[in-house]
Amino acid sequence: MTRVFTIQTSGAGLYEFTREVADWVRGDGLLTLFIRHTSASLLIQENADPEVQTDLGAFFDRLAPPSDHPAMSYLTHTYEGPDDMPAHIKAALLPVSLSIPVMGGKLALGRWQGIYVFEHRRAPHRREVVAHLSP
Amino acid sequence: MTRVFTIQTSGAGLYEFTREVADWVRGDGLLTLFIRHTSASLLIQENADPEVQTDLGAFFDRLAPPSDHPAMSYLTHTYEGPDDMPAHIKAALLPVSLSIPVMGGKLALGRWQGIYVFEHRRAPHRREVVAHLSP
Amino acid sequence: MTRVFTIQTSGAGLYEFTREVADWVRGDGLLTLFIRHTSASLLIQENADPEVQTDLGAFFDRLAPPSDHPAMSYLTHTYEGPDDMPAHIKAALLPVSLSIPVMGGKLALGRWQGIYVFEHRRAPHRREVVAHLSP
Repeated sequence: MTRVFTIQTSGAGLYEFTREVADWVRGDGLLTLFIRHTSASLLIQENADPEVQTDLGAFFDRLAPPSDHPAMSYLTHTYEGPDDMPAHIKAALLPVSLSIPVMGGKLALGRWQGIYVFEHRRAPHRREVVAHLSP
Repeated sequence: MTRVFTIQTSGAGLYEFTREVADWVRGDGLLTLFIRHTSASLLIQENADPEVQTDLGAFFDRLAPPSDHPAMSYLTHTYEGPDDMPAHIKAALLPVSLSIPVMGGKLALGRWQGIYVFEHRRAPHRREVVAHLSP
Repeated sequence: MTRVFTIQTSGAGLYEFTREVADWVRGDGLLTLFIRHTSASLLIQENADPEVQTDLGAFFDRLAPPSDHPAMSYLTHTYEGPDDMPAHIKAALLPVSLSIPVMGGKLALGRWQGIYVFEHRRAPHRREVVAHLSP
């Protein structure tokens, strides 16, 4: 069983879609999510306190600043904009696929875990996540 | 086939549970592990030399120091303790799920690979890892 | 259905093997790749512009420099060479397993996504990637 979730983003940050996924799964099996992009990621993170998401964004922006930042002068792939190569770096560091067991129709997520698309580009994007449910 | 492994931790660091998983799998298929937390991770790493594990811990502590460290003054999520937000950062950087093929009842791990829970918090925690074995 | 792909490397960097994998998969299901090493990784990244791969390598070399670099003087696992412990660090940060849905005999990769082995050691290595295809 396969489905594509489409997540419209409007700038860098985390976009939760736990509910859409939870509504789709059923029975017992394994859910796999796969994001079809190299400048956005999947992420499972805390869904309780929005400060966590702000801080995560701030950490990754410091780890991989825009390519017009002096610390990133060694980058060569700059013609797609200063946020493009850092987006590829973040996409290497963060998950492109995630697998979550499904038990009795429910995702085996912990109490505080939500499923997110982590958008790394500034401009709006339409992101596709392919979901696969195996029995 | 599903099972929950519980790993009791006693401070930050790596906790191996390769043997428990190896004893549980059978036949041919795919093992998936999923950790139900946002401040601890799964990790496959070298199981031969304990220095590797010490150095991994040291690297990640330098990459994401406690939130009372001057370099982390930009963090806002601090009320759960100085080791909490760095734990979320490490949990974003390290795997929440892992999939390992099983062949003839054996995990397809390489010779030096062990399966670990990487605890990011200082206080003891009871960590749950959901294992799913698909045929 | 299981198969082992062997990728011969000749120094640090990205080695694409998308075509070999695409030629092997069939039907509808889930492909899982697992690399049997702790000093090389799997990676899905942009396959269009080779500068992206150069920059990725440069970023990770700065994030985890060789152990004879002054910034890494805290490392203790050094007897296997200055590129060994940074290789373990990179292998912790980058994927050891990847799962990609297969639909109608085709990998559900995005237009710009390629599948790579990311070699972290300087010396040539023969890397094994176990592929599992579930229905």
